Amino acid sequence: MEQQQNSAILLIHCPDQRGIVHHVTDFIFRNSGNILRLDQHVDVEQQLFFMRVEWSLDGFMIPTPQIEERFAAEVAERFNINSQLHLSADVQRMALFVSQLPHCFYDILARYEAAEWQVEIPLIISNHEALRPAAERLGIEFHHLPITAENKQQQEQRQLELLQRYQIDFVVLARYMQILSEEFVSHYAQRVINIHHSFLPAFPGGRPYHSAHQRGVKIIGATSHYVTAELDAGPIIEQDVVRVTHAHAVTDLVRKGRDLEKIVLARAVWQHLNHNILTCGNRTVVFE
Amino acid sequence: MEQQQNSAILLIHCPDQRGIVHHVTDFIFRNSGNILRLDQHVDVEQQLFFMRVEWSLDGFMIPTPQIEERFAAEVAERFNINSQLHLSADVQRMALFVSQLPHCFYDILARYEAAEWQVEIPLIISNHEALRPAAERLGIEFHHLPITAENKQQQEQRQLELLQRYQIDFVVLARYMQILSEEFVSHYAQRVINIHHSFLPAFPGGRPYHSAHQRGVKIIGATSHYVTAELDAGPIIEQDVVRVTHAHAVTDLVRKGRDLEKIVLARAVWQHLNHNILTCGNRTVVFE
Amino acid sequence: MEQQQNSAILLIHCPDQRGIVHHVTDFIFRNSGNILRLDQHVDVEQQLFFMRVEWSLDGFMIPTPQIEERFAAEVAERFNINSQLHLSADVQRMALFVSQLPHCFYDILARYEAAEWQVEIPLIISNHEALRPAAERLGIEFHHLPITAENKQQQEQRQLELLQRYQIDFVVLARYMQILSEEFVSHYAQRVINIHHSFLPAFPGGRPYHSAHQRGVKIIGATSHYVTAELDAGPIIEQDVVRVTHAHAVTDLVRKGRDLEKIVLARAVWQHLNHNILTCGNRTVVFE
Amino acid sequence: MEQQQNSAILLIHCPDQRGIVHHVTDFIFRNSGNILRLDQHVDVEQQLFFMRVEWSLDGFMIPTPQIEERFAAEVAERFNINSQLHLSADVQRMALFVSQLPHCFYDILARYEAAEWQVEIPLIISNHEALRPAAERLGIEFHHLPITAENKQQQEQRQLELLQRYQIDFVVLARYMQILSEEFVSHYAQRVINIHHSFLPAFPGGRPYHSAHQRGVKIIGATSHYVTAELDAGPIIEQDVVRVTHAHAVTDLVRKGRDLEKIVLARAVWQHLNHNILTCGNRTVVFE
Repeated sequence: MEQQQNSAILLIHCPDQRGIVHHVTDFIFRNSGNILRLDQHVDVEQQLFFMRVEWSLDGFMIPTPQIEERFAAEVAERFNINSQLHLSADVQRMALFVSQLPHCFYDILARYEAAEWQVEIPLIISNHEALRPAAERLGIEFHHLPITAENKQQQEQRQLELLQRYQIDFVVLARYMQILSEEFVSHYAQRVINIHHSFLPAFPGGRPYHSAHQRGVKIIGATSHYVTAELDAGPIIEQDVVRVTHAHAVTDLVRKGRDLEKIVLARAVWQHLNHNILTCGNRTVVFE
Repeated sequence: MEQQQNSAILLIHCPDQRGIVHHVTDFIFRNSGNILRLDQHVDVEQQLFFMRVEWSLDGFMIPTPQIEERFAAEVAERFNINSQLHLSADVQRMALFVSQLPHCFYDILARYEAAEWQVEIPLIISNHEALRPAAERLGIEFHHLPITAENKQQQEQRQLELLQRYQIDFVVLARYMQILSEEFVSHYAQRVINIHHSFLPAFPGGRPYHSAHQRGVKIIGATSHYVTAELDAGPIIEQDVVRVTHAHAVTDLVRKGRDLEKIVLARAVWQHLNHNILTCGNRTVVFE
Repeated sequence: MEQQQNSAILLIHCPDQRGIVHHVTDFIFRNSGNILRLDQHVDVEQQLFFMRVEWSLDGFMIPTPQIEERFAAEVAERFNINSQLHLSADVQRMALFVSQLPHCFYDILARYEAAEWQVEIPLIISNHEALRPAAERLGIEFHHLPITAENKQQQEQRQLELLQRYQIDFVVLARYMQILSEEFVSHYAQRVINIHHSFLPAFPGGRPYHSAHQRGVKIIGATSHYVTAELDAGPIIEQDVVRVTHAHAVTDLVRKGRDLEKIVLARAVWQHLNHNILTCGNRTVVFE
Repeated sequence: MEQQQNSAILLIHCPDQRGIVHHVTDFIFRNSGNILRLDQHVDVEQQLFFMRVEWSLDGFMIPTPQIEERFAAEVAERFNINSQLHLSADVQRMALFVSQLPHCFYDILARYEAAEWQVEIPLIISNHEALRPAAERLGIEFHHLPITAENKQQQEQRQLELLQRYQIDFVVLARYMQILSEEFVSHYAQRVINIHHSFLPAFPGGRPYHSAHQRGVKIIGATSHYVTAELDAGPIIEQDVVRVTHAHAVTDLVRKGRDLEKIVLARAVWQHLNHNILTCGNRTVVFE
């Protein structure tokens, strides 16, 4: 599960057909690659094939910059395969969007400071000033971009410029309390991860702990998903739950939910960082 | 938690006010009752008080048949208390409604045969013949009442007559695939327990495993609740969940869900049998 | 996850080496097999390779009776591969060993009657008469073999003869309260599944719920494992847990544990039936 | 569950006897206290009674400084009751002991900075310098007391002096990698909370993730407990678990365990801060 230091990761999806595993592994084998991990999945209903294969680059005969092209020419084109190549040695660049609630934000910064993840966080964007000190003491650039109904389009434009300037690979919304526009999302498809404080599809939208309390559920949840144009409806990456009872007031749900949210979000980010996720329509394939 | 052999259980709810615990325990104490268990809950928002108190009847000075009346006269009327008195020695009578899916049904019969619960099951009603053999080999009366759009009202009338004839205290719908009418439900308020095969309020109504699969959730659930006029919207007694992945087809969700359903339903029945449940609007207070 | 109706399942383990996946999939592909599912695992510490691959036999060019021999000749011998071939169409034969506690036993019989599993249960062996009626009403042979210190060796001999006579593939100990001898176990290595009522390695041996209560744990568990010569120390297939509190007496742990035991045992049997399990020393590889 | 701003909390334990609830609630009621929450537990085996009762001090007729004395005189002495009185308005003072692993430490500091808990942290003690910066940026005193076999007794003396000087109410060992002496522990009985990275009583002592991996368990856990003279054997406050598979190496267990440890420790601290815990021999009664 832990990322190898010098490996290649190939994510594949295509129409299901005979021989794909064989041809992909053949490509790796005849170029002297040693497979470290191989996961595949067939969506039987839609006849789609998904695969993640990771192999050591030690002794691999194709120079790294040419792998993608060679794989395309020798395998991918023939089988109509969509593929992405990732290198375990590459360090991804993540931006954080936050508002005022600090728990997910502090949790991510703590992991960053402890080097739990192989990631660079050069940029934090917030519609409030509240969390600037925590960002700055770790030397991370903090940009305050307050959002109003009037300036939203313009501020999103500035956000996009910042993401580009800092060469951001993906964005994590750590309880960012603004809805991103369809336009914004289209630039970062499957590259914006959100945490929603309910067990989706139950209680989408605002104040889910209040709704959960009112409905009298015995378990509450949190859901991490890729952001799409439709609110709280994107592909789910990870969910988890915790028991509650009649004795828990809304403030207790909020308290218990905080811990759930930060853990669920962190797991989703980890899967993303490790290139374990493929999407299939509105569903994810998570090879853990 | 285990039911004591000779105890009284008092369930109380009323507007919250100073001194209720004191006056209730005073009633028990000055009549030489020894409290075995006491649970209380205050719904702060609605200013409602809930309590379950169980005391040993060994040496209790009020003769059992007079307890209810004496409590009413000495305590309940003064504080505008709603109360129910139960005796642990009383064996409740349960009816099962089933259709064709056997897993919850078999599970309950197995518990019955193993004497896991203190209960009598004199009556099973089904809209199919399929499960008659399992009922009859345990000597339980099995009534086949097929339901059509035309005869529904009439058949529900026969069901109600049977419930009365067999002196049924409460009904368990063990994956019974018919919706009970508002009229039927009104006769057994908080006395009909259903199992729904989703994590309510997500996926109410039909085919929840298909919906869960389509939405790509990472956890599925089951919910046991009291039946009310509104479908799958009654007070929730118990819920539980199990993890699934992209690799699980709908048939896998159905398979994993079966185990969840039978356990969640059994837990709810157990709480009901032990007089652990009070309802508060559309929510339950479950003193476990 | 669901078993395909006409497929072959190959379980492989061998020293890790370059090209295994390639050569195995090549064998399937060039004989026109279509891979339905492929799982592999590398134990990095011990440099061992494990694989489960399942492919459709529709159109597969090697006649089924020759697959094993051809795979040996063309692949297995070259890579020093240990392999087992299973056919999804084959129905396995399971024997149940029980004593007096009925919950796991009833649960398995209910699944059998409901045809949840693709299995045949021709034989039940017990050291007590208590559960004979439940066996016989499903038409399963029930053999009563009481065990004493004196007759144990002789009775185990009779058990082994019965297993052979009924052509039993694997044995499930459904809370069978006798310890099997090393001699007995040696005949059914990785073919005897036990359920232990604790979260192993905590509380092995007798009365684990009492020990758990005394230690004041906040969670109890159940463990299903293959039986080996050492008591409660065999390879773990499945575990699960449930929360308890100070309020739960030993009898409550027993009650909650019953549900846990039957579910954990059933999951282990299901994995075994689906040929999802390989063992690696005292650990299992479970490809779910 | 959330702490009320102006309430008294009485924790009681004594031999079980008729009328205790009555007499305690009578004391509160006749002095015009309004009970906010009442929990009781009878340990049937040992015939011990435990209770936590919280009431509002608004309008309570006994001046706060006299409550303890009056309760002793009017109730406690008569029933041989052990009691502790806490005031919700009092802010407890916590010391953190850490070594080099930062995850539990960062998590607690994040909660502190976010004011999730009503607590003061004036003091951090470590046998390493590594975590000084995180302490100092929040303005918390950080004392570096390296431990060797030779200086251990002397350093513990200095630790005890620091705890006294800073008026510390309780100590949290946030993955502090030193064993406290019996002498040290005796000064802070039930006031030192530890987190152990296993599902106790499985895998006490060092390197539990390695042992768990070697044993092939399917679930790992973390345990928070009060520290006693015997290593990892004190009263358990909270436990939780997470699923693992054969695919998880020891490094994966460590990674998954980190999140578990910090959540389990935080829950235990929260229960302690809210005066929800009583101990009964080596077990805890946790009224949540």
